[in-house]
Amino acid sequence: MEASAIREILKVASSPGVISLAGGLPAAESFPLAIMQDLMARVVEKHGAKALQYDASEGFGPLREALVPHLAARGVAVDPSGLVVFSGSQGVLDAIGKVLISPGDVVAVEAPTYLGALQAFNPYEPRYAEIATDDHGLLPDSLDAVLTREPVKFVYLVPTFQNPTGRTLPLARRLAVAEILRRHGTLLVEDDPYSDLRYTGERVPPIQSFAPENVAYMSTLSKTFAPGLRVGFCVAPAPLLRWLVVARQGVDLHTSTLGQALAAEYLVGGHLERQLPKILALYRPRREAILAALSRHLPAGFRWTQPEGGMFVWVEGPAGLDAVRVNERALAAGVAFVPGRYFFVDEEQGAATLRLNFTAADPETLDQAVEVIAAALIAELAAGGK
Amino acid sequence: MEASAIREILKVASSPGVISLAGGLPAAESFPLAIMQDLMARVVEKHGAKALQYDASEGFGPLREALVPHLAARGVAVDPSGLVVFSGSQGVLDAIGKVLISPGDVVAVEAPTYLGALQAFNPYEPRYAEIATDDHGLLPDSLDAVLTREPVKFVYLVPTFQNPTGRTLPLARRLAVAEILRRHGTLLVEDDPYSDLRYTGERVPPIQSFAPENVAYMSTLSKTFAPGLRVGFCVAPAPLLRWLVVARQGVDLHTSTLGQALAAEYLVGGHLERQLPKILALYRPRREAILAALSRHLPAGFRWTQPEGGMFVWVEGPAGLDAVRVNERALAAGVAFVPGRYFFVDEEQGAATLRLNFTAADPETLDQAVEVIAAALIAELAAGGK
Repeated sequence: MEASAIREILKVASSPGVISLAGGLPAAESFPLAIMQDLMARVVEKHGAKALQYDASEGFGPLREALVPHLAARGVAVDPSGLVVFSGSQGVLDAIGKVLISPGDVVAVEAPTYLGALQAFNPYEPRYAEIATDDHGLLPDSLDAVLTREPVKFVYLVPTFQNPTGRTLPLARRLAVAEILRRHGTLLVEDDPYSDLRYTGERVPPIQSFAPENVAYMSTLSKTFAPGLRVGFCVAPAPLLRWLVVARQGVDLHTSTLGQALAAEYLVGGHLERQLPKILALYRPRREAILAALSRHLPAGFRWTQPEGGMFVWVEGPAGLDAVRVNERALAAGVAFVPGRYFFVDEEQGAATLRLNFTAADPETLDQAVEVIAAALIAELAAGGK
Repeated sequence: MEASAIREILKVASSPGVISLAGGLPAAESFPLAIMQDLMARVVEKHGAKALQYDASEGFGPLREALVPHLAARGVAVDPSGLVVFSGSQGVLDAIGKVLISPGDVVAVEAPTYLGALQAFNPYEPRYAEIATDDHGLLPDSLDAVLTREPVKFVYLVPTFQNPTGRTLPLARRLAVAEILRRHGTLLVEDDPYSDLRYTGERVPPIQSFAPENVAYMSTLSKTFAPGLRVGFCVAPAPLLRWLVVARQGVDLHTSTLGQALAAEYLVGGHLERQLPKILALYRPRREAILAALSRHLPAGFRWTQPEGGMFVWVEGPAGLDAVRVNERALAAGVAFVPGRYFFVDEEQGAATLRLNFTAADPETLDQAVEVIAAALIAELAAGGK
């Protein structure tokens, strides 16, 4: 139901004339369109027919090798045999659901959490246990309590620039989470799509680096190369990784060889290193613009996150506010966002919350859009839900 | 188990020095490597950043449009909204399993059938009902009896140049199957990856064309463009198609936009029409070579199919022969194939059968390989299973 509500919102949001803060799209200007032909030339020259042929379910060898130093620079130590390439992060999530979830199994998630993970897991019929969060992400005590109370199959977290809140779990909590995972012998699925998109502050190491035997770490090139290539990857303990490969073989055999070969060339050619500063330079003023616009336009009684990176700001309004109705009002004035309630497993929560994307629009447009949303909020508060 | 046995065989088959008739790989020479840079240039020029961005789960618009005349020329009448692009045929099979199969549901399949379909369906825990076949494919009376006896959720068939047998269901049987499907109100999943690879004889229309409301028709560009792109597609009745889209959204969001854009350009640029005759000219002598080699080298007591197209010949030996042991003997002499028993749901069947691929090796190599296999067969028969 949440999924179809979101689909409906995104469909309307992509209509001509609508300013969308609803999606999670990278800006079109962030793509290295200018080098695609060169990348293709290199791929054809280096790999020839191999780049067009069926390939191993584990991933294209040159990409697996190129990901080793890429991951090492991000705190994840692994050799090529310890990682598998999937068709986007979504492919990792589906394989994890398929391998680990039997109907009724408990999956522990943050409240709120990433909707795409719920969409991947739901067909395998888990029950969810919610972990409480504050402005710095999940509360380790809440995680400990959930793991003590429930037979949790695995924990799913987005610890850095979380979707939907933009929050980042601080180092001390990461260490606490690693200790709790080890103590309970529980697996964490650490979803890390955004950590390269840091506009301010210092990089925090992944939880995986503190408890590699208890973590399946997953990331993607969707935010730093191109989402349309559908290249994600997973580093996990060997027995789990083997089962993920078996599961994915029945799902899609392997990820596009050509897409993987282009991605490998993007990494080994140093293109990601050159492109990332451009992407950050594009998004940094957008983040500043949306935070400034929220300060400028929102009435008293609202608070919002100050994400150091990623793509989203999370706004919380006063109790009683219905963000679904606010979205309808904003849409009537040509601006779309996603009401936050859809990111909670327990639908009673989050009624007064909004997720705003800031990467797909320029600073001026963001200011206009927030002004429209603020007007919708004020009108909705004035109407008192009538 | 079958899947892992096959994986093991394919791994050994790809070792240096081994001649492999085991896989189902298109020949590397069949790929349009020379035009890949031009295709990329056209894609960048026509679609720009759209080719690298997230896209609709239903498929990239220009590819869906390009597939309409492509399918019409093959007897499948559909408009763009009636087809969905998936990540290879395997992606279609997984989505069908996910949407249609609850544990214990009955899926009716040919005996033998395509192993990749079983791999896609098995995680959803179906029961299989086997439909009897002869040299011309499934027996309509057997299908009718299975549908009368069992509560079949859907039927899965590869009616043209079947994998593993190479058999093609004649027109009269297709009409009978369509009538049976309509009478029982049963869905057929018609898997048609090979029909463009016809070396002799006349094209036969798909069963879909005789019972569009009862058929989910699926095909791929893996054999006529490049399997490494992972582009498959499905034409199905609207309510089923909607659910397939919802299911695949949780699995991989959508198929690589870039891969789809390249495929669209391959179709609209007339490249497939120019490439296909080259592919046929490459494979036709290979088919003739393997059939001649079988006549030349195999001892009495063996029969094999005379496929008019596709990638496989099916060999049946005398009762008591164990093709798994024959494969071990052939491997020791540097030649690999797949024992036929792995393609049967009922493992007691097919012990004396072999699947031989003829598209991945040249005519001389095929003759050598068949000579080695014949020697292994003769040695195994002489040893009498000892």
